[in-house]
Amino acid sequence: MADCVFCKIRDGQIPSFKIYEDSKALAFMDRNPLNPGHCLVITKSHAATIFEVEVLDLQAVIAAVKKVANAVKGAVQADGVNILQANGGAAFQSVPHFHFHVIPRFTNDGKGFDWKLVPGDTQQIGMNGERIRAVLR
Amino acid sequence: MADCVFCKIRDGQIPSFKIYEDSKALAFMDRNPLNPGHCLVITKSHAATIFEVEVLDLQAVIAAVKKVANAVKGAVQADGVNILQANGGAAFQSVPHFHFHVIPRFTNDGKGFDWKLVPGDTQQIGMNGERIRAVLR
Repeated sequence: MADCVFCKIRDGQIPSFKIYEDSKALAFMDRNPLNPGHCLVITKSHAATIFEVEVLDLQAVIAAVKKVANAVKGAVQADGVNILQANGGAAFQSVPHFHFHVIPRFTNDGKGFDWKLVPGDTQQIGMNGERIRAVLR
Repeated sequence: MADCVFCKIRDGQIPSFKIYEDSKALAFMDRNPLNPGHCLVITKSHAATIFEVEVLDLQAVIAAVKKVANAVKGAVQADGVNILQANGGAAFQSVPHFHFHVIPRFTNDGKGFDWKLVPGDTQQIGMNGERIRAVLR
């Protein structure tokens, strides 16, 4: 969809650090990570929320989330992982293109879930992305 | 699995307010709601986390989550919905049986995500459960 940031990332019009891709799902590093290794898994087809997304796309994406979560956990040696998905501004959705957050957690990391959209260190994001990609290969 | 609270809910050994069921997924009201209408969707098969869950179970559960999220939104007239899933104590998982939280959100509800496990009002939970069930029928 025109003017959709994640459609532009999918199409390579906006740069991103991609870590996984199949026919229906795409995963890339979050630019505003809650914790190191935080990434996103999106539908390739544009749909704003869970209310609009096609079931087959949703099922493909959740299968990708499982793969990515496993890779992230290993790559950054996380103690746990949260999967978070937001629908609507009231639910803190900032980009209206269906996506799951895959958030590595560390025991008592004190981060909660209410992170500010502050860009992380690009080099560190890239290094973590390389580690995750290596596990997924 | 013996001593699993959600396996016991599935088997009717612990009472719950069930709102949806199919061959692989079960949904029931959360006893400690962040907001009115908060419910859980679990795999019928026991698996602790996304790392252990079978992909087909995961895909069945996420399809159920879509149905339930839609029903919850309509039933409690939510402005948005969060889907949250926790793996491991570091990620705030309290019951080690795979589940998604379906959390209705209201504009500026001020709730964040860090809710205390305080039981909600049983009657209100039941009334919201009835409303959701009615939409799902």
